[in-house]
Amino acid sequence: MTADAASLVSRALTSDRQAIAKLISLVEAGGDAAREAIALLHPETGAAWSVGITGAPGAGKSTLTDRMVAHIRAADERVGVLAVDPTSPFSGGAILGDRVRMQGHATDPGVFIRSMATRGHLGGLAVAVPQAARVLDAAGMPWILIETVGVGQVEVEIAAQADTTIVVVNPGWGDAVQAAKAGLMEVADIFVVNKADRSGSAETASDLEAMLSLAGAQSWRPPVVLTVATEGAGVEELLESVALHREHLVGTGLLAGRRTERLRDEMRTIVAERLSEQAAALSGGERFEELLRRVGDRECDPFTAVDELLAQ
Amino acid sequence: MTADAASLVSRALTSDRQAIAKLISLVEAGGDAAREAIALLHPETGAAWSVGITGAPGAGKSTLTDRMVAHIRAADERVGVLAVDPTSPFSGGAILGDRVRMQGHATDPGVFIRSMATRGHLGGLAVAVPQAARVLDAAGMPWILIETVGVGQVEVEIAAQADTTIVVVNPGWGDAVQAAKAGLMEVADIFVVNKADRSGSAETASDLEAMLSLAGAQSWRPPVVLTVATEGAGVEELLESVALHREHLVGTGLLAGRRTERLRDEMRTIVAERLSEQAAALSGGERFEELLRRVGDRECDPFTAVDELLAQ
Repeated sequence: MTADAASLVSRALTSDRQAIAKLISLVEAGGDAAREAIALLHPETGAAWSVGITGAPGAGKSTLTDRMVAHIRAADERVGVLAVDPTSPFSGGAILGDRVRMQGHATDPGVFIRSMATRGHLGGLAVAVPQAARVLDAAGMPWILIETVGVGQVEVEIAAQADTTIVVVNPGWGDAVQAAKAGLMEVADIFVVNKADRSGSAETASDLEAMLSLAGAQSWRPPVVLTVATEGAGVEELLESVALHREHLVGTGLLAGRRTERLRDEMRTIVAERLSEQAAALSGGERFEELLRRVGDRECDPFTAVDELLAQ
Repeated sequence: MTADAASLVSRALTSDRQAIAKLISLVEAGGDAAREAIALLHPETGAAWSVGITGAPGAGKSTLTDRMVAHIRAADERVGVLAVDPTSPFSGGAILGDRVRMQGHATDPGVFIRSMATRGHLGGLAVAVPQAARVLDAAGMPWILIETVGVGQVEVEIAAQADTTIVVVNPGWGDAVQAAKAGLMEVADIFVVNKADRSGSAETASDLEAMLSLAGAQSWRPPVVLTVATEGAGVEELLESVALHREHLVGTGLLAGRRTERLRDEMRTIVAERLSEQAAALSGGERFEELLRRVGDRECDPFTAVDELLAQ
């Protein structure tokens, strides 16, 4: 097992696709081998630029991601795609739902596509997605696109854990108030109004601009980019905006702080997950049953009993 | 402070309404005084019968609760009501939303009504509601009605933490599949089809009966009671069903096991909350910052860093 993790990592560092796939499965599953792999991978990371893509279901995120992949490939750069769906029980090699169209890139050795779904264990994706991104980063992918299926809390948090976060809305999707409600104004580095050939796109764009003006002056004002992903329109401008955002973070020196905050969130999630494992272990033992009996017999109250349990 | 908790408890044991109100505020707030109060109250509990009432918003739970209170008072028994709304930021003496009609009982010294809302801290209501019920139990209320505003996960769990759990549906509210989806089939000891003067009530009742038959033979089959709470119709039959369920749990000896499971859940929630406080403390200290810097510098990976943090 130990030899396996080390050998997978050394193969992944030479961009071996099979090793990358196996490593992502390994870090998704967790456990000792996963941790050994992460310890070996972590020093090799830091060069990739990660882009989170979030927005309501049906906003056209998959098509947009697909077109971004095509542009990145046209520039002859490699790209990894993580398609994250916390609502699906299916993970692994299979491409979920409408992401099937991304299969057009599946035979391109410069593109690595992976779908990730919840495994039902606490904190699962919030821990697993950064590890999968670490694998792609260490494997030398200059671009990592992290697309989430919707705008649930977990999904927004995952998309926000990227160097550049793109929020995709549609004309009439809402008067920007919907975006604000979902906590998207805070995480967006770039807004995309996709399906901009439909009526109402100018209004949606100006609503977003108005909301951004209300937020006050900041060192980076998220641009609002109009796209028609199905036709590829606006995708080049979107990638130019990503490049500008990257230059901004690097040039101002803000990137280091942003990545530190991301690591902070990740470590806090790991702490919380570790302690909740402890809670489960404590709640299952003989000592717990003995204290439960005493509380039931009213020899002791529940809070004092928990104190005794934790004092072990 | 210590003298306060002890004096409040001794006054509450003589059914002093003001002391009961202050004690509930105290246990809601948590902290040392709350824990001292719980330690003093817990040995005095066990005589009350608690009834959880849950169901979709608008199903008529408040009106039904109001009518149950009237019946219980007609039998000259005292009753405490906890109206639980995890979606509201308001707690305390104020009666929430449509519960204002319960004010009809507010001047009755045999009725104690209290609304409880989330305070935003993790595990808040799941811990606070059992403590408030403990106050009412120790204060000698033979009946405690715990009404939740909706069918969210927290609300269903709270309603299920009762000796008898009533699930309220409406005609056409759904084909019982909705109830199953919300996890209500598992927690219901009694089903109520309220607003039974509307069309479709017989169909809803037979849908529920069919779902119950699918669930297979059990020692207690939840009865389906038709009510028109606004007119008081069916409320007497509902309270008879509660009495039958109580006789069943007491007669079969199942009550002790059920209450032990409730205490088990409560203690587990307290363990989880205590450990999440520890997680917050660990994630805020100097040691965390030092480890975060090392992970950022890639001297160490995040999992190893968390191990070192927890090893303290």
